[in-house]
Amino acid sequence: MILEGIVTTEDARGHVNIAPMGPQFEPGQDHFLLKPFATAHTYANLVQHPEGVLHVTDDVLLFAQAAIGLVEPTPALMPAARVRGQVLVDACRAYEFRIAEVDDTQDRVRMRAAIVHTWSQRDFFGFNRAKHAVIEAAILATRVHLISPAEIASEYQRLEPLVRKTGGRDEEQAFAILSQYVQEQTNSHAHKARPT
Amino acid sequence: MILEGIVTTEDARGHVNIAPMGPQFEPGQDHFLLKPFATAHTYANLVQHPEGVLHVTDDVLLFAQAAIGLVEPTPALMPAARVRGQVLVDACRAYEFRIAEVDDTQDRVRMRAAIVHTWSQRDFFGFNRAKHAVIEAAILATRVHLISPAEIASEYQRLEPLVRKTGGRDEEQAFAILSQYVQEQTNSHAHKARPT
Repeated sequence: MILEGIVTTEDARGHVNIAPMGPQFEPGQDHFLLKPFATAHTYANLVQHPEGVLHVTDDVLLFAQAAIGLVEPTPALMPAARVRGQVLVDACRAYEFRIAEVDDTQDRVRMRAAIVHTWSQRDFFGFNRAKHAVIEAAILATRVHLISPAEIASEYQRLEPLVRKTGGRDEEQAFAILSQYVQEQTNSHAHKARPT
Repeated sequence: MILEGIVTTEDARGHVNIAPMGPQFEPGQDHFLLKPFATAHTYANLVQHPEGVLHVTDDVLLFAQAAIGLVEPTPALMPAARVRGQVLVDACRAYEFRIAEVDDTQDRVRMRAAIVHTWSQRDFFGFNRAKHAVIEAAILATRVHLISPAEIASEYQRLEPLVRKTGGRDEEQAFAILSQYVQEQTNSHAHKARPT
């Protein structure tokens, strides 16, 4: 099962990176498999310091912000219990991990993460079409360089009514942030493509 | 917020109905708003006996089965604590409720449900695109009479890779059940539409 979660890692200077990640995760197991892109901050941080925290959360505003690299203001954090790392205070659950094995022979690095401590913080809302529409929109936003503007626009058009009809304010704000971002990216690309 | 949940109710003879429902639900409040169709078993049961149980669950196989009215075998149930009703043993959370107010002046009946007891059973998996794809497919299956077969087929085609790439066996089975159902419904409609 792929879990769309949020991973925090620290760089050498202790700066916290908050990134959306889709590890292979099976409930009840004592490990999971991270597959970061080799270009990701998360990967660079884990190479330097192989510890971090995987969060299960229904906070799609944070997902949206993290997807476009604009987590502002920084959400409340607390020190991890068993690793050098930070736990999102408002997450539903948090899994402190240590990388036990790295396989970089494939396109995407595979990092086997051993869970060393678990936090249970609050309930996950449950299935909500708006929250999920934001997740899909956030994933599209991270692929804005790979997908045509027309396709992205049409997907956002399909997702928008779900957000409006089944979500709350956070979901609307998250979707608005993502809509603005993909539009800006599309415009800046169009601009660059113009002959000058 | 609309929560895609599962509601159990009982008819006069004590037969349990298991139905997907999308109530308006805000975490932390002591009530929620059910909006059943007047034709639904859930509505008929609640008119006779105004008590039931709303479940938050990530079990999409149950969602799929309940959406097409084929919950087989019946999942494990246990008696509710404060109402005459049944709790799904494998749910993540369960909210026993009593209908406090009914407004049937609008197209869809609005039933205000007071939560009288809460169960916390197990963790919700978290965001998973396959689980959510099954929820979307299940919602489409309940609208098979309102949407063109071509549109349903194209939506199922869009959802299938998500199920395959990010889900497990239960998600695949759930999607297969729904695919078969919509295909059967489409064929039987096509048959009926043919001049004889």
